[in-house]
Amino acid sequence: MAKRVTIKDVAKAASLSITTVSQILNGKGDRFPEATQEKVLHLRDELGYVPNFNARNLISHSMQTVGIIVPNLVNPFFSMFLRGIQDAMFDQNCVPIFLSADHNETLEKYYLRTLVERDVDGVIIASSAIGNAEINDLLKRNQIPYLLFDQNDPQNEGDRIIVDDERGGELATNHLIEAGHRKIAVVLPDQPSQNVRMRLAGYRSAMVRRGYAVEDALIFTTDLSKHGGRQVAAALIKSSATAVFCSNDEIAIGLIRGLRDAGKRVPEDISIVGYDDIDLDAYITPLLTTVHQPVYEMGEWASQMIMKRLREPNGPAQLKVVDVSLIERDSVRGL
Amino acid sequence: MAKRVTIKDVAKAASLSITTVSQILNGKGDRFPEATQEKVLHLRDELGYVPNFNARNLISHSMQTVGIIVPNLVNPFFSMFLRGIQDAMFDQNCVPIFLSADHNETLEKYYLRTLVERDVDGVIIASSAIGNAEINDLLKRNQIPYLLFDQNDPQNEGDRIIVDDERGGELATNHLIEAGHRKIAVVLPDQPSQNVRMRLAGYRSAMVRRGYAVEDALIFTTDLSKHGGRQVAAALIKSSATAVFCSNDEIAIGLIRGLRDAGKRVPEDISIVGYDDIDLDAYITPLLTTVHQPVYEMGEWASQMIMKRLREPNGPAQLKVVDVSLIERDSVRGL
Repeated sequence: MAKRVTIKDVAKAASLSITTVSQILNGKGDRFPEATQEKVLHLRDELGYVPNFNARNLISHSMQTVGIIVPNLVNPFFSMFLRGIQDAMFDQNCVPIFLSADHNETLEKYYLRTLVERDVDGVIIASSAIGNAEINDLLKRNQIPYLLFDQNDPQNEGDRIIVDDERGGELATNHLIEAGHRKIAVVLPDQPSQNVRMRLAGYRSAMVRRGYAVEDALIFTTDLSKHGGRQVAAALIKSSATAVFCSNDEIAIGLIRGLRDAGKRVPEDISIVGYDDIDLDAYITPLLTTVHQPVYEMGEWASQMIMKRLREPNGPAQLKVVDVSLIERDSVRGL
Repeated sequence: MAKRVTIKDVAKAASLSITTVSQILNGKGDRFPEATQEKVLHLRDELGYVPNFNARNLISHSMQTVGIIVPNLVNPFFSMFLRGIQDAMFDQNCVPIFLSADHNETLEKYYLRTLVERDVDGVIIASSAIGNAEINDLLKRNQIPYLLFDQNDPQNEGDRIIVDDERGGELATNHLIEAGHRKIAVVLPDQPSQNVRMRLAGYRSAMVRRGYAVEDALIFTTDLSKHGGRQVAAALIKSSATAVFCSNDEIAIGLIRGLRDAGKRVPEDISIVGYDDIDLDAYITPLLTTVHQPVYEMGEWASQMIMKRLREPNGPAQLKVVDVSLIERDSVRGL
């Protein structure tokens, strides 16, 4: 292991006892002469001594660490979520540690275990692969506070932020129906998470309420990425769809590219609605009509809720239901 | 602090000594009856006991943790870099911990300090705000291995990955010159890091070598983001530039939007070359001509180099110079 500069080194250089140095470094040295206190602080800096967190943590809880597990760092939705967390936590002198498992379930469980081993003070889980089993075994049993983000599984208890994804699916579908579309396709990831299934449920209920058929032939699955969106373009062109509801913006952006490569224009030939409202939607052509999730704010809320839990371990469960809204841009055409 | 399930709990439940349980849990229990070993392993799982990393680390170095500080998680260039690190480290049973400082120097130094306090085994620094002072005080003095990424400061020593950014600037500029452009603007961030200054140096040398003037009026600065690119569009339109070299793709994507909003077409009215080759460049319209950095591979190389350093603390300094290449797409027009 690396040879760290220890408190012993500081004490030796100051020719003082470790106890004395420890008290001074922890702001409890008032009973010592000012000169002594200054000498210790000076030597700490000169030697580059950094107190060991776990040792220091026993004395003061001044700095806490929260681990955040996300499924995919490369999706702008999650990087914006992490930025919201980061900004809110810095204000609170709390350090966010990010781990990304890239939709790899083994990796996600392994990372959760690592965070527990690292003695994090709390965990934010934005990954549907981590279920009640891991949460019970690793977090509850060790009494480590945690917050579930974007997991609509009704079985979950404890602190949660959930998004009204069913309403989101309805908003997107109603918008297309009101624009005159009836043959509305949906593009989903191959293994839809609970919140994506809610978006599909919203699509179904919107169609059924208006008395329109939900055709299985118009429900497509692909990889949850720009590449996946591009891949699905050919099948969509063969279908009867005049409009597409994409379960996230990454898929929508890839689909727009795939359609363009095949000589189809958006929205002239096919209308598209995305989901998430990543910042990119306001830059690409056509500007993407989508369902807005306030993801940066959701990061701030997640931080505030987990930090409240750290302060009040036995407080009541916190539940935040996030509303969504439709952002109309240029990717939908009226029939 | 959270009441963790301790080895004491396991020993008590097994009515065995802590030493016995510890030896069995650390795979050194061969001398005990199989039944005893099984009982301990069973109780470990039943109670949800997770060995404390720092305690366990004294026994086995099986799992190591490397902290990675990046300036901006929201830039796809860095999220792809982190994905390369993550994939390579998981293969090596090493856990990457990501911290993003969002170009906040205070935050970056604070995070580096936190990583040292958390006893990370190594650090990858992809942030130009952390200079030799912090590296000396926090890392060298504590003998914590580190790797510098994307910092061309010749003063730096130790393990480094640097990109041939001067050549990148030349490639971009030569491509525009060969397309017939003479009035070539450059867009830089307000406070260019060393590697961005190298890209500008490449632009200058390419212009000068062909005998073309470098006009200060054609050098623009803005925020290093899509928003910054959009903001600079108006000034560019007022200038005499027929082409623009953007110091990263985010700026280029924002600039394309800003030009379009002002009724200018790319490349018909203004040609644009970006820098980085983020995956998005192959989806937007027009497809972006840019300078390719193999960023995913750079993440893998960074992981391999820091893990080699952890295995061989006293090995020779590792230096990897990464070459770049021009990717021709649709954003440049021949005059």
